[in-house]
Amino acid sequence: MALLVQKFGGTSVGSAERIRAVADHVAKTRAAGHDVVVVVSAMGQFTDDLIRLAEEVTATHTAREMDMLLTAGERISMALVSMALSAVGVESASFTGSQAGIITDTTHRRAKILEMRPDRVREALADGLVPVVAGFQGVSTERDITTLGRGGSDVTAVALAAALGADVCEIYTDVTGVFSADPRVVPSAQRLNRISFDEMMEIAATGGRVLMLRSVEFARRHHVDLHVRSSFTWEPGTWIVEEDPTMEEAIVSAITDDTSESKVTVSGVPDRPGVAAALFRELADAGVNVDMIVQNTSAHAVTDITFTVAKTDREAALEACRRVQPRVGAETVSSDDDIGRVSIIGAGMKSSPGVTALMFETLSAHDINIEMISTSSIRISCVVRANKVAEAVGHLHRAFGLDGP
Amino acid sequence: MALLVQKFGGTSVGSAERIRAVADHVAKTRAAGHDVVVVVSAMGQFTDDLIRLAEEVTATHTAREMDMLLTAGERISMALVSMALSAVGVESASFTGSQAGIITDTTHRRAKILEMRPDRVREALADGLVPVVAGFQGVSTERDITTLGRGGSDVTAVALAAALGADVCEIYTDVTGVFSADPRVVPSAQRLNRISFDEMMEIAATGGRVLMLRSVEFARRHHVDLHVRSSFTWEPGTWIVEEDPTMEEAIVSAITDDTSESKVTVSGVPDRPGVAAALFRELADAGVNVDMIVQNTSAHAVTDITFTVAKTDREAALEACRRVQPRVGAETVSSDDDIGRVSIIGAGMKSSPGVTALMFETLSAHDINIEMISTSSIRISCVVRANKVAEAVGHLHRAFGLDGP
Repeated sequence: MALLVQKFGGTSVGSAERIRAVADHVAKTRAAGHDVVVVVSAMGQFTDDLIRLAEEVTATHTAREMDMLLTAGERISMALVSMALSAVGVESASFTGSQAGIITDTTHRRAKILEMRPDRVREALADGLVPVVAGFQGVSTERDITTLGRGGSDVTAVALAAALGADVCEIYTDVTGVFSADPRVVPSAQRLNRISFDEMMEIAATGGRVLMLRSVEFARRHHVDLHVRSSFTWEPGTWIVEEDPTMEEAIVSAITDDTSESKVTVSGVPDRPGVAAALFRELADAGVNVDMIVQNTSAHAVTDITFTVAKTDREAALEACRRVQPRVGAETVSSDDDIGRVSIIGAGMKSSPGVTALMFETLSAHDINIEMISTSSIRISCVVRANKVAEAVGHLHRAFGLDGP
Repeated sequence: MALLVQKFGGTSVGSAERIRAVADHVAKTRAAGHDVVVVVSAMGQFTDDLIRLAEEVTATHTAREMDMLLTAGERISMALVSMALSAVGVESASFTGSQAGIITDTTHRRAKILEMRPDRVREALADGLVPVVAGFQGVSTERDITTLGRGGSDVTAVALAAALGADVCEIYTDVTGVFSADPRVVPSAQRLNRISFDEMMEIAATGGRVLMLRSVEFARRHHVDLHVRSSFTWEPGTWIVEEDPTMEEAIVSAITDDTSESKVTVSGVPDRPGVAAALFRELADAGVNVDMIVQNTSAHAVTDITFTVAKTDREAALEACRRVQPRVGAETVSSDDDIGRVSIIGAGMKSSPGVTALMFETLSAHDINIEMISTSSIRISCVVRANKVAEAVGHLHRAFGLDGP
């Protein structure tokens, strides 16, 4: 007998029919002898509807009240899932984030979990009930309702799994798992049966849409095995687990793509200490999250600094750069939206020379120019023209043998 | 400077535009130097939508989960009202029933308030904020979310007004006050500027739709003056206050009508002690709320017992009567849906003989047959054929001089 946390996303509880399907699945899991804790998101587009309604009322949205508003969504889905469970003979009780003891800091809209006190969830389990917990929400140390930000329901599920010592945290969604590339870009993409946390973090960080980086990080830190799977087909999906040193690892597991970023270039910068520090301090103070950074070592007295930011942060980034421009003596500040990033990810890369070369050769053979490069021990990312991204992913997928047998 | 509790019903917060109008009104009240606590219902038909959604999911609705579901409605409207207040420069903070310290018993769907601990509401007032409190909801002594049943938001407002020692509890709705009759039935009906709690309780109990009996009772017990008024015209409405013995009272203030009930007759009952007790115990145990009861004193050995119940309780009432029928030796049990009740209400009735006679004469003059009569010290009710109700109300309204100058 195992303890499973089963998290259902917005599409998985998107209609009365989907909610009944979820209840059936939970009932089957129970019939197989397991204990289950359910975590739910708001139904389908309900959260977006609430945001639209708030915009109709006023343009200014106090963060505390937005949290109060948005948490209505999970409240509705958790009550409905709990009723659907009763209807199939499974006793359950729903709990808000607050009732489930999810204590957060006071940062509304993107609160961080400070402490888990899931006493009522434990009691419900001990009483033979299925606790149904609202994802995405908690209660602050000031007793105000908070939300955990994007991907917050996954974080709730992982945090509960960690606090309860669950055997696995199952993330049910509308895809059947994590793929070797985005199947919309590469039709021959294969589902991965098993990948490591490190690989999944790189995938999430470079454009994978299935899981947010934050919940994967949380799961890794708390040693919670994840199983990403479909609530439409219910077939086994992708396990995300600790790296097993006895297993041979795929050299490259997945190719990811991301066209959500802009490139910002500060050129003609004097090549002296403190320039980069001044620039990135200004960006940090402006709340801009910088992703890739490239600075060429310079044979001359001047150099260029290029970095990528989310397109939504582009204007703030340009303003910050222009503020710092006179101080560091840069010549120009410019940006480019028409870029995309292609990344190859694989834990086996660490012990396999030649991966970088094969990536560059593949892109070059297809006349795809590389504008920026950045690497980690298990990832290589290249920035290319946006209109070349899909093509690049396809060629790399084939070159690294991911197209399948 | 006064402290006002302002309660806004479903139509008053039914759209983004109505919510902005509410915020403007609260801002004006503040600008006039008053402190305000806002209590809100769910938007328009939102609660009904949630109930429909629950019915789509399953036919069985656990009461605890229905409460969890339905309380999402006020959560949405309170957050939106609070944001609208920010937009017009009024600082506010929203509170759920639980956060506002509304402690109830554990009866889901129609919980009773056991205790008010509105510490956070008081703190918010002391900090110069407008607290915006969710109506209709509380938290039980078992820490579960509860709802207060029909008219629950009014109860929340009155209970808060009592606990905070507010000067008045304003109930904003889609009508401009309490009328001398239902304006849809009697177009010449006049708005009452001021009536006593006793009169309002009789009006609520006999078909008045503006306030529920329960909140009026609560207000009377806790000496909270009520002011029922419109959130569309914002004009002064009807004050419901303690009876002022120095004022001359209207003999008849209002005529009410109610066609929501059925008449049940148990006939041929032996006229001996214990029969009525056995019958009404059985009805009480079946959860049937009996309204009017008439038993004729009998010159013979048998008598008839007739009572009215809500049409929705008719079947349960008939079953209860049939269960008890052999035991008490009654001849027949029957019911009649085509009845209606007409009532005249007035605190001045106590000291004015002739009111009963005028009522009966008026009905008789228009060939309206009286099937049942029941009276209190300030009310006379007659059951007549359902299709005669509107006509009866009109004639009585005129006969008692309520048509206005």
